[in-house]
Amino acid sequence: MAVVPILSDKAAGADALAVFDDIRAKRNTDYVNNFWRALAADPALLRATWERLQVVMGPGHLDPLVKEMIYIAVSVTNGCSYCIHSHTAAARAKGMTDAQQGELMAVIAMATQTNALATALQVPVDDRFTVTGEGPTDDTP
Amino acid sequence: MAVVPILSDKAAGADALAVFDDIRAKRNTDYVNNFWRALAADPALLRATWERLQVVMGPGHLDPLVKEMIYIAVSVTNGCSYCIHSHTAAARAKGMTDAQQGELMAVIAMATQTNALATALQVPVDDRFTVTGEGPTDDTP
Amino acid sequence: MAVVPILSDKAAGADALAVFDDIRAKRNTDYVNNFWRALAADPALLRATWERLQVVMGPGHLDPLVKEMIYIAVSVTNGCSYCIHSHTAAARAKGMTDAQQGELMAVIAMATQTNALATALQVPVDDRFTVTGEGPTDDTP
Amino acid sequence: MAVVPILSDKAAGADALAVFDDIRAKRNTDYVNNFWRALAADPALLRATWERLQVVMGPGHLDPLVKEMIYIAVSVTNGCSYCIHSHTAAARAKGMTDAQQGELMAVIAMATQTNALATALQVPVDDRFTVTGEGPTDDTP
Amino acid sequence: MAVVPILSDKAAGADALAVFDDIRAKRNTDYVNNFWRALAADPALLRATWERLQVVMGPGHLDPLVKEMIYIAVSVTNGCSYCIHSHTAAARAKGMTDAQQGELMAVIAMATQTNALATALQVPVDDRFTVTGEGPTDDTP
Amino acid sequence: MAVVPILSDKAAGADALAVFDDIRAKRNTDYVNNFWRALAADPALLRATWERLQVVMGPGHLDPLVKEMIYIAVSVTNGCSYCIHSHTAAARAKGMTDAQQGELMAVIAMATQTNALATALQVPVDDRFTVTGEGPTDDTP
Repeated sequence: MAVVPILSDKAAGADALAVFDDIRAKRNTDYVNNFWRALAADPALLRATWERLQVVMGPGHLDPLVKEMIYIAVSVTNGCSYCIHSHTAAARAKGMTDAQQGELMAVIAMATQTNALATALQVPVDDRFTVTGEGPTDDTP
Repeated sequence: MAVVPILSDKAAGADALAVFDDIRAKRNTDYVNNFWRALAADPALLRATWERLQVVMGPGHLDPLVKEMIYIAVSVTNGCSYCIHSHTAAARAKGMTDAQQGELMAVIAMATQTNALATALQVPVDDRFTVTGEGPTDDTP
Repeated sequence: MAVVPILSDKAAGADALAVFDDIRAKRNTDYVNNFWRALAADPALLRATWERLQVVMGPGHLDPLVKEMIYIAVSVTNGCSYCIHSHTAAARAKGMTDAQQGELMAVIAMATQTNALATALQVPVDDRFTVTGEGPTDDTP
Repeated sequence: MAVVPILSDKAAGADALAVFDDIRAKRNTDYVNNFWRALAADPALLRATWERLQVVMGPGHLDPLVKEMIYIAVSVTNGCSYCIHSHTAAARAKGMTDAQQGELMAVIAMATQTNALATALQVPVDDRFTVTGEGPTDDTP
Repeated sequence: MAVVPILSDKAAGADALAVFDDIRAKRNTDYVNNFWRALAADPALLRATWERLQVVMGPGHLDPLVKEMIYIAVSVTNGCSYCIHSHTAAARAKGMTDAQQGELMAVIAMATQTNALATALQVPVDDRFTVTGEGPTDDTP
Repeated sequence: MAVVPILSDKAAGADALAVFDDIRAKRNTDYVNNFWRALAADPALLRATWERLQVVMGPGHLDPLVKEMIYIAVSVTNGCSYCIHSHTAAARAKGMTDAQQGELMAVIAMATQTNALATALQVPVDDRFTVTGEGPTDDTP
């Protein structure tokens, strides 16, 4: 169904293969999933995406499972079937329980419906929800 | 800018006012934000939305701040300006730090770009990301 | 393809099964479609969704077929394949003719293109399209 | 806020002005709203959009108010502020009551949340919801 | 998977068949793709869509391949699997190279992530990005 | 309206200021637009976004103006008001004519409507639009 080939290790060029190898090493698995193999036709885009993903999803101020749940929320809202599958699997691997998944579903469903209502009614933002002292718009620095 | 009136307490009917009072009591504040006042023209919808919100965002298996961040992620992806404002304020009130907000932004930006790439390339879902034993499709129970 | 099991009657817990039975009774059919079976892992979410659906889609001020067509319009715009299928079937069951379906398609296509144009050009809203006397934004009640 | 000028009658070229005059004649009003004035820089696009709108929204198999409500549903889901405003005003002008508007809101909110759930869980479409005898895919005619 | 039949030449009515024949003639091919066959149940919508497509995608001020890439960008963002497939094939047929496709992917991914960030932070538009002299909003002409 | 402060040069930290200075140098202007000032609270995200933007929008296989038009197409479809404004200004600065802008609008409107129709009818992808020899899904490398 892809609009590009999903490159096997043999079909991938040396630059792409180096990224595949890095994925295997960092994830401690032999498996490289289709997303990366689809990007492999453009090794520069493949590498930039993989490098950035590690920075963003790596250790920081949010729990790794929380990051996966946020990723799922965005992917659901964007309707990305591939990403919903891959990040639900990742969240499961990081310990997401059935109960947590159920709550994640409930929050997504709630948010999406109040989003629709606020948009449908074009509700004006309350003054207290905006940040004051916004600063420059076309002013000198 | 709204397409419905944002009802003050005086303009709201008794059913809507009862919900406003419940909001004030549960949130321990005098302030009822515009979203609820915009819904007040339809007290049944107002009440159903408020009741459901309390269930979904109330105590459970996910941290309240995590729920707010998921709410923000959905609202950003849906482009709901009102909800981005109100739930960013709520997340702040629940302790979201600048560093956490920065990471939330980074995860949203990352997810949205890999969503676009997976969709653009129509990457097929890896077998291992699907749940086996799916069961009924037009089967007897 | 699902990321959760589609629970058969046997696999579903008692709480979920009670909802399945209610669906069968209210719809006067033996068939419970996959959407409900996918939600069954979280019986509280299953029940809340089913209860709310009955209220919203039940008798009221809009014709049942009109509600189904609005449901289709939203589902198409959100790109929800499952919902497009299920609600097109429901609209057909409620009497949607080929000619009505053709007009529904034409209205959706028209709306979506003028949405794109108005957004692309960032057309300011005419004063006459806003509701006056909006009332409170950080005002006392 | 527009990214193009909102052309007054004087600023519009002859081709655009002819469309403005047709809008005034067909709608029996002196007022030409900003959407058309924003399109006026490209008279061919202006005319094509106006001509098509009349066909789609004109008499047919669906009630004019129903068409407006479908238009609103699409516009809300696409988050088009301008179109929500203009078509809510149009629906009001065609007799949409508060109670009907409330139900429209409730259906949009319901659809959008079940869209999110069906997408989040990647629920497979039930066989009975697909049309059989689909016919050609790469076959001879 | 369709919710309407994909009509073969035999199943299509005379009005639809005339459009199929025009597609074959204009594209110099025997093949009529599924999109048109799905629309064939409503010959008026089929014809209007086909006629408009020719105007929009025909010779003008933008290169035909550029138009296809813009079409792909919109289709990806809307998550339309069918259109991504058909317009990627069309872009390929018009000479899109692997390197150009890679850059198209990179621009789509970049845009979608800065869209998310600007929306998430609700960044106010700089004065210099708006067009001055916007003209009428409820003014006399 | 922002949910974060739009930092002036004085309010920005040293790391953010270094990025502002680089923006000024590379763009040969004194002006740093609000998007970057909104990101400045998170200098790492600011720098990563700016660095990546330069790579993606820099010299390559697509014309710079074509890249801006693709950027606009994505931003319109995502409904990002800020990005529509800033990239329409950028496209203008790179020479986009009124006629080209008109065609860009027409292509976006066309794509979005056929996206809606293909999605609404759930048209199956023609075999000839898919890439053959897709390769691995859960196979050994």
